[in-house]
Amino acid sequence: MAHSKEKIIVIGSGPAGFTAGIYLARANLNPLLIEGFMAGGMPGGQLMSTAEVENYPGFANGIDGQKLMGEMRQQAENSGVRMNMVDITSVDFSSRPFTMTDMNGDTYEADSVIISTGANARRLDMDSERQYWMKGISACAVCDGALPIFRNKPLAVIGGGDTALEEAEHLTKFGSKVYIIHRRDEFRGSKILQKRVMEHDKIEILWNKVPEEFYGSNVLEGVKLKDTVTGEISDLIVSGCFQAIGHRPNTSFLGDSVVLDATGYIRTENGVETSVSGVFAAGDVQDPQWRQAIIAAGSGAHAALAAERWLNEHK
Amino acid sequence: MAHSKEKIIVIGSGPAGFTAGIYLARANLNPLLIEGFMAGGMPGGQLMSTAEVENYPGFANGIDGQKLMGEMRQQAENSGVRMNMVDITSVDFSSRPFTMTDMNGDTYEADSVIISTGANARRLDMDSERQYWMKGISACAVCDGALPIFRNKPLAVIGGGDTALEEAEHLTKFGSKVYIIHRRDEFRGSKILQKRVMEHDKIEILWNKVPEEFYGSNVLEGVKLKDTVTGEISDLIVSGCFQAIGHRPNTSFLGDSVVLDATGYIRTENGVETSVSGVFAAGDVQDPQWRQAIIAAGSGAHAALAAERWLNEHK
Repeated sequence: MAHSKEKIIVIGSGPAGFTAGIYLARANLNPLLIEGFMAGGMPGGQLMSTAEVENYPGFANGIDGQKLMGEMRQQAENSGVRMNMVDITSVDFSSRPFTMTDMNGDTYEADSVIISTGANARRLDMDSERQYWMKGISACAVCDGALPIFRNKPLAVIGGGDTALEEAEHLTKFGSKVYIIHRRDEFRGSKILQKRVMEHDKIEILWNKVPEEFYGSNVLEGVKLKDTVTGEISDLIVSGCFQAIGHRPNTSFLGDSVVLDATGYIRTENGVETSVSGVFAAGDVQDPQWRQAIIAAGSGAHAALAAERWLNEHK
Repeated sequence: MAHSKEKIIVIGSGPAGFTAGIYLARANLNPLLIEGFMAGGMPGGQLMSTAEVENYPGFANGIDGQKLMGEMRQQAENSGVRMNMVDITSVDFSSRPFTMTDMNGDTYEADSVIISTGANARRLDMDSERQYWMKGISACAVCDGALPIFRNKPLAVIGGGDTALEEAEHLTKFGSKVYIIHRRDEFRGSKILQKRVMEHDKIEILWNKVPEEFYGSNVLEGVKLKDTVTGEISDLIVSGCFQAIGHRPNTSFLGDSVVLDATGYIRTENGVETSVSGVFAAGDVQDPQWRQAIIAAGSGAHAALAAERWLNEHK
């Protein structure tokens, strides 16, 4: 079993992780970046399954998600970041230096750690969902709502939490009509938001419904719904279906090493500080709210600068 | 005098302003972006005078500062952001809708405002400083310290605050030696940081000294120093000179409309909320600490999403 001693390790290879790596390498801290293998979805993060990214600033005509992450990865490599494509399976932050173990049993120690393992949108896990993923089905109304294929078309949001309601409100600016498909007969969360959504003349709520099957041609054209009470099947014609059934932060490997919130996100103070001094968190893994690549990247730079300062103070 | 009624106005055209504009336009909020004219330095912000940006994630081989800002501006335009190249000279946030007046006397009203007017590094205002600006003289050690021209060369930091000391510490990783040129005989700020810097074997402090003239060939080769007590002139051979004599946030046009800190930065809570509900701040204008383009861009997206939520709640 190999054992490596590092000054600082970054875990995760999305916009937050690569940006942290770039900043640390440019500060001559010789970081090791653990890219991940399988545990948090594919290395590179959620943008790897995003066709066109139009809201990452710096690309006038947008950029393909995989291409953007390829640029970031190469930039990290050019900056001198060393990378290792394995999953960290357990950590021990209770003594210093911090220690970590990967899927092969190899171990790592480091004076400081930045966790940026991201989060993944929950999926329904249906064949027809996979078929129309990114062809009408999306997990991010803020990212994809403005696409031309959704303009003045009937759209649907699946979910019943605040994110679902906010996304429905957001989509009213684009769609001809917005349905909220919810498996229960009431919403969780903010009453004010519920009131706004229920009173909105473009929004119609379909209670006690779950998707049975998505259908269409090359792109999504509709969804068969099943009533959770009567079992009845109905048909809804929509050009877009936005899933807002929650996100799962990739924090299970952390055990109770740092404080998480009730939904598994890492709790941070001052933006990037976890409950353990010297362990920082950046990007979606500590952001249940906004989940945007550019915010994650900024957060990665922030964590790297805070870690550099911390290392100077603790050597 | 023209008068325009807007839902939301973004003031400022650096990474934070353009990113906010892109997000607002993509949320169909039809934002007006006030690019600025003269008041805060040139439209586009501090990157407009940066030759090569190597730490903005997404460009494997770096990108020219003006080109990056050109891409962002075009992306904002492509997203539907309307722009106006004037300076806002006064604001009134005491009643709603908020009102603003520009340099031509034209007036604007808006339900919500995002302020992202940035900050500028203070300069010494010397001819020889302008001559070697970006040819050995820089205002950002974190941004430029890793450039090959500074490797294993004697370097200097000008200033005596915590930023100057942190930048000196950062530069020890690259330079053969780092001088701190300080006009007084003691430092302000953190005692611990002072101790580290004074004990660092690569750092030498030159007390009571101010630059008299920078000199060199195509690039900086040294600086003549004047002793502030004796008036004596000495010569210091350095390949890089990093100015850390403070930044000036562009907030004078705000008067007392929002709460500023002692050095003129806008105070924010939850990252982007100013003291006035509905007025948000993003980027360097509210960040005395990190001052990085990618952090400013992330902050712009954050402000736009918070403003969208605020507008939904207050319509």
